Amino acid sequence: MKCAVLSVGTEILFGQILNTNSVYLSQQLNLMGIDVLYHYTVGDNDSRLSEILQMAFQDCDLVIATGGLGPTEDDMTKETVCRVMDDILREHAPSRTALEEHARERGRALTPNNYKQAMMPSRAVVFDNDAGTAPGFALENGGKYIICMPGPPREMKRMFQRRVRPFLEHFSDSVIYYRTVRTFGIGESSLETRLLGLIDSQSDPTIATYAGEGECSVRVASKRKTISEARDAVDQMIAQIRARIGEYIYSEDNENLADVVGQRLIRQGITISSAESCTGGMFASELVSVPGISDVFDRSLVTYTWNAKTDELGVLPETLETYSAFSEQVAREMAEGLYRKTGSGICISVTGIAGPGGGDSDRPPGSAYIGIVHAGVTEVHFHRGRDVNRDWNRHYAVLAMLDLVNKSIKQ
Amino acid sequence: MKCAVLSVGTEILFGQILNTNSVYLSQQLNLMGIDVLYHYTVGDNDSRLSEILQMAFQDCDLVIATGGLGPTEDDMTKETVCRVMDDILREHAPSRTALEEHARERGRALTPNNYKQAMMPSRAVVFDNDAGTAPGFALENGGKYIICMPGPPREMKRMFQRRVRPFLEHFSDSVIYYRTVRTFGIGESSLETRLLGLIDSQSDPTIATYAGEGECSVRVASKRKTISEARDAVDQMIAQIRARIGEYIYSEDNENLADVVGQRLIRQGITISSAESCTGGMFASELVSVPGISDVFDRSLVTYTWNAKTDELGVLPETLETYSAFSEQVAREMAEGLYRKTGSGICISVTGIAGPGGGDSDRPPGSAYIGIVHAGVTEVHFHRGRDVNRDWNRHYAVLAMLDLVNKSIKQ
Repeated sequence: MKCAVLSVGTEILFGQILNTNSVYLSQQLNLMGIDVLYHYTVGDNDSRLSEILQMAFQDCDLVIATGGLGPTEDDMTKETVCRVMDDILREHAPSRTALEEHARERGRALTPNNYKQAMMPSRAVVFDNDAGTAPGFALENGGKYIICMPGPPREMKRMFQRRVRPFLEHFSDSVIYYRTVRTFGIGESSLETRLLGLIDSQSDPTIATYAGEGECSVRVASKRKTISEARDAVDQMIAQIRARIGEYIYSEDNENLADVVGQRLIRQGITISSAESCTGGMFASELVSVPGISDVFDRSLVTYTWNAKTDELGVLPETLETYSAFSEQVAREMAEGLYRKTGSGICISVTGIAGPGGGDSDRPPGSAYIGIVHAGVTEVHFHRGRDVNRDWNRHYAVLAMLDLVNKSIKQ
Repeated sequence: MKCAVLSVGTEILFGQILNTNSVYLSQQLNLMGIDVLYHYTVGDNDSRLSEILQMAFQDCDLVIATGGLGPTEDDMTKETVCRVMDDILREHAPSRTALEEHARERGRALTPNNYKQAMMPSRAVVFDNDAGTAPGFALENGGKYIICMPGPPREMKRMFQRRVRPFLEHFSDSVIYYRTVRTFGIGESSLETRLLGLIDSQSDPTIATYAGEGECSVRVASKRKTISEARDAVDQMIAQIRARIGEYIYSEDNENLADVVGQRLIRQGITISSAESCTGGMFASELVSVPGISDVFDRSLVTYTWNAKTDELGVLPETLETYSAFSEQVAREMAEGLYRKTGSGICISVTGIAGPGGGDSDRPPGSAYIGIVHAGVTEVHFHRGRDVNRDWNRHYAVLAMLDLVNKSIKQ
């Protein structure tokens, strides 16, 4: 099946918003085995929209459109679509009832304009919107399909997952199942090398690697007759991947590292504190984004100056003078000082060079020493930076800290 | 002038990357008074690309394309463009020399493929690329123009600013100048109301308001015969805006709040420390993103538990028990405890509810008390949250803290 993704909205043409809908839909459609040949964006303009639709249907069987379904004058996607697909608008009773209920619940009155949202092409399959007021729909004409969804990404994504994907799956005699494995500590090219035999040797499941911000993921997808066949194929492939790169995997379900670590700490009831220098509070900030973390997170002492390191953590002035703040010794004293103060189950410290500049050829900007006290034992690890930019370097050091905590408490 | 923005690249159709080029170009072109009617994305496919070009030229005088100028087999933008614009490719000597120099500097040999990048349409105006190897160009045929630039955003933006914008300005007898004023503490609708007379009363300078993440900006743009006329018009309008909403403005040159505050602290040599609860290190992390901040930033004590607040900051257990951690009293004791410990020029504290959940109708999730000790005087401010989500709420509280610091040290 060949498809075009169409975004309707003048605000995109003004550059006021990033078009994230087209990225999301492209990912989802490609995963379903539907080829995306074009992205189009057009304003709320009847003649340009109808031109685009006619052009898209020359090559494509399917157009997936978002936007222009609202209640105002400029929202004219439905009218144009009807003209191109040879249909007429007619009131859709369930949509009218849903609109009226939505308004009643919020104590609002409906204006005549609002009722426009309940008008649907007469032959359409209507998709209800449980995150907003504009329903979506699918419409067929001469073997060509158009699917229209609302523009707000949250409404569109819910509608796609709940209603549009199952609708499209009807056209296919197979289903897709996929999982994303996330890794830290291995680069994309080494990852590919290690998985080489697996990637080449077969067409299903497919394996694709992606480089993220300082980490890599592997998506494993299978297209089979039934969901259980597809799931089995994916699970078996993930077992093979695990055998090859298991030591780098921190999630087999696309979770982020802070969530994995935070939830594991909460589940195991292990308390944690941190002592940060170069990351400047970013470690704590990442961990605090995990809901429920207040059960286990005690404190983070962001000791930026030498003074703060001696005051707060008891780092010895001699150690700072002899080895400088960017040293294994200082990372060790920071972690141990923090442990004396807090007694937290995990005490982690970091001191390094955020960049830009600084460091040397063995320790480029972004490098850091990470100290950890766990079960009474202190270890210090060297984290080699990649000298990208200040914020990226700090983020990458935070990932290294989370990874270290994760490995310490993995059971 | 009417224009289409065209992105060439299969990776966009796979949903592997966000199309940020089209946002950037739309903003820039709209600012220059060029109407953007369409965005198109197409893979590296000759027949689809030429169809799109023909369609675009039906409505538009100008197509701005990015991508497909590289040295590999699939890069065929130039070939297709030549066919549509009735031209032929020919070696462009200065581009060949530049390529050879680029390779020599890096000690690399050029492959035959590389020389493809020096082939240019014979009638083209060539734009050199000082951030990469693929040159861009402009080509005219029958009054229609196409401009092709490389796909990597960094290369594209530099080429647009250095070469393409001046080229396009030739077609116009006027220049554009604009500035962006940034505000905190006023919503977009109040902002519009306050600027109402200014926004309506004239067509140049134009005034547009934008809602960002917890803050709003106002862009003032003028199109005049000369740059100095345009600059004068913008400056005069900004003076009028300042008279109406000056108390909310923190930058008249599109800087972010952490940079404004950080640079002001550094310039004035005022030291700063923070004591954070609900923001969990995010305040420190934002401030530390400012290069050079180590001159003035001493420490942040992220005291998440009651214990940490009493240990680190000397908050009284009675105060916590009587008023709870989410109280004016605790914010005050946190700031004053921090000041006793550090003596920093500015000591700022925050305690609140990150959400989701918690708080009450007067103090929705995201609300916080912010304490500040400056020049020996303690003040506590209530920050009313908006209950968006945990990370947004924390970010908004950090902006409120930065805003308070900014107002304290503004001279």
